[in-house]
Amino acid sequence: MSMGNIIVGQSGGPTAVINSSLVGVYKTAKDRHADKIYGMLNGIQGFLDERYVDLTEKIKDNLDIELLKRTPSSFLGSCRFKLPEASENEAMYQDIFNKLKKLEIKHFFYIGGNDSMDTIKKLSAYAKEKNYDINFMGVPKTIDNDLAVTDHTPGFGSAAKFIGTTLKEVIRDGLVYDSKNITVVEIMGRNAGWLTAAAGLAKAEDCEGVDMIFLPELPFDVDKFVDKTINLQKDKKNLVIAVSEGIKTADGKYVCELNAASSDFVDSFGHKALGGTASFLAHKLASEIGCKTRSIEFGTLQRCASYVVSRTDLSEAFLAGGQAVKAAFNGESGNVITFERTSNDPYHCTTHSYDVNAIANVEKKVPLEWITNDGTYVSDELVDYIRPLIAGELTPIMTDGLPRHLTINDLNR
Amino acid sequence: MSMGNIIVGQSGGPTAVINSSLVGVYKTAKDRHADKIYGMLNGIQGFLDERYVDLTEKIKDNLDIELLKRTPSSFLGSCRFKLPEASENEAMYQDIFNKLKKLEIKHFFYIGGNDSMDTIKKLSAYAKEKNYDINFMGVPKTIDNDLAVTDHTPGFGSAAKFIGTTLKEVIRDGLVYDSKNITVVEIMGRNAGWLTAAAGLAKAEDCEGVDMIFLPELPFDVDKFVDKTINLQKDKKNLVIAVSEGIKTADGKYVCELNAASSDFVDSFGHKALGGTASFLAHKLASEIGCKTRSIEFGTLQRCASYVVSRTDLSEAFLAGGQAVKAAFNGESGNVITFERTSNDPYHCTTHSYDVNAIANVEKKVPLEWITNDGTYVSDELVDYIRPLIAGELTPIMTDGLPRHLTINDLNR
Repeated sequence: MSMGNIIVGQSGGPTAVINSSLVGVYKTAKDRHADKIYGMLNGIQGFLDERYVDLTEKIKDNLDIELLKRTPSSFLGSCRFKLPEASENEAMYQDIFNKLKKLEIKHFFYIGGNDSMDTIKKLSAYAKEKNYDINFMGVPKTIDNDLAVTDHTPGFGSAAKFIGTTLKEVIRDGLVYDSKNITVVEIMGRNAGWLTAAAGLAKAEDCEGVDMIFLPELPFDVDKFVDKTINLQKDKKNLVIAVSEGIKTADGKYVCELNAASSDFVDSFGHKALGGTASFLAHKLASEIGCKTRSIEFGTLQRCASYVVSRTDLSEAFLAGGQAVKAAFNGESGNVITFERTSNDPYHCTTHSYDVNAIANVEKKVPLEWITNDGTYVSDELVDYIRPLIAGELTPIMTDGLPRHLTINDLNR
Repeated sequence: MSMGNIIVGQSGGPTAVINSSLVGVYKTAKDRHADKIYGMLNGIQGFLDERYVDLTEKIKDNLDIELLKRTPSSFLGSCRFKLPEASENEAMYQDIFNKLKKLEIKHFFYIGGNDSMDTIKKLSAYAKEKNYDINFMGVPKTIDNDLAVTDHTPGFGSAAKFIGTTLKEVIRDGLVYDSKNITVVEIMGRNAGWLTAAAGLAKAEDCEGVDMIFLPELPFDVDKFVDKTINLQKDKKNLVIAVSEGIKTADGKYVCELNAASSDFVDSFGHKALGGTASFLAHKLASEIGCKTRSIEFGTLQRCASYVVSRTDLSEAFLAGGQAVKAAFNGESGNVITFERTSNDPYHCTTHSYDVNAIANVEKKVPLEWITNDGTYVSDELVDYIRPLIAGELTPIMTDGLPRHLTINDLNR
């Protein structure tokens, strides 16, 4: 029996495995006899301009599927678009549903974070109110791991694996010279410290780990930071310190705003506004201590590093897409696929289909009891929570010495 | 027949494969019946403080050998130490040779770049003059690829593979939003543009590549740079531009020195002094064009990224170490192992043992005929030269979800 036409979109910041969720939606829908499978370009914003593609023309065979699983960033492009309330702009809703009707869409899938889930929440509510026979399902995605209800979010595990892998190398690199030096590493996460906490993964049998970790969940005191660093350096010449881009002082000021150079430009820099936290602290330490310091911003590398992708993360991203299709085909709407950890060691998760109202626009932070040593490190419980999410690898498919990706030319350049 | 005792050291900046050269020296010397195999800690500087280890105690079996091949940075630590002329400080030379005599060293191997080869040049000359029966051999190493005589240098291929791989991902990442944005990526290489030229690898069947590449071999004009960027953006919303950390204006000023924030700190920042080139240009473009810009500094990640190591590079690094041992055991001294490319397609190289005097302190830059488009890109010949050096991979050995390294605790912390 035919399941009708479906459409899928990607929204918010890209991850290393967001396309694995896209493949999960595509392959599961295809296997379950969907008719047309459309992909909206640049999310709901592009759809409003009638920009979409027929995915069966873009994903031609099983090799394309394997390549797309391994392709970082958003295959269909993305957007940061907040849908107005229907009460504020019903015309836009009518426009969207007319366009969906024109394509005879029966099922609508949106892959994104808590902001993007707001779109699923509003469209599903409007459809119910107006009795449109279209199911809206959310597929969770974010490197920030800040989604409510779900144990964790696809995209986080691979970013965490990149951070752990790279920090082990940065620590080795810092040890080579027989002289004092301090490296401050800046990690993404404006309000939630999950990614920065992944710095705790670097501590292992073959690595002493980073020396301090500062999350945005607690206020940051620059002077205490300098004092603690001076203390640590009494016993250890080479220090590596991980800080979140979002750490703030007690008066609510971002540390990077203390950086003259960056705050001058805050307005003209979109998401780069928070850049410069590590740079500011490295400069501060250099002038206070006088030893060699350096700052490293992982920046976008941490969200698109597909060559250190976590197999667990990639498989769960695919699963989330597939489960969303199954739920929609069973008539569900206004739900998001969530993960429940039924066992940590050995690791096992089950999935649920959960009410989007509990997830949209909600931000899950790191519990304070998982932050230790007077706010300078993370607990073993937190590392034990992250560890299974970085397990396993997926070998890239290489051509000409570099990882091969699947791409489309339909995005505006 | 016994070959006597040997000692090996590592010097200069670390690479992803410098330990493969160390393994090449160790295994080849062991297989050819060296007696004791010593490793000096933090190069010749540590040796002057009698800091060394018995490598047979640190590399216990074949699994250790496989782990060490895959371990980035310098296993034995490193130094940046310029040996004075014997005429200036003969006492230091006598000190060194007394310590070598005490350990009954017959063969001395030093893994490093053109500065480090100066140590081999001076020690081998002094040994000949004073009739010491010790052979001194150099093993080439540098991500900068700026060594004379040799076709290329171990360490460069893996750094180039990281740059090509990461740039493909950064380019994908920049395409997701349907809005103008510019990414400026800063790549290592103070005077020679080989590594920055590796940005040319990103252009492939599945990737449009970076839009401009600026090497330090040519003077950089900030105003022309802004104009060219504005021109490019007329046809293309998302731009990715690669610049060397070492680009200078016509009057010989480093571009990063134009950056108020960084130049304030130039003196207190050792090798970070050149940081901020991309940041300065991104700020400049943002204020001139008004679109979203971001800067990415690859920094030390490019020299220690062992999970995207080039198999070709790693094997050649091992080969260079092994050939140095064979040459020394044949009685050679004062030479460096070099590579000669006998065929580019299919790729094949042979090695030679070459007079260190032609290599020490000499810097090989990118030929100007390999820089194209009015200084904004690199030629196909240059990319064809680099491509074979990034071929092949070596799977990391993973434990707890992260690459496993072999380490020693003898380095000063």
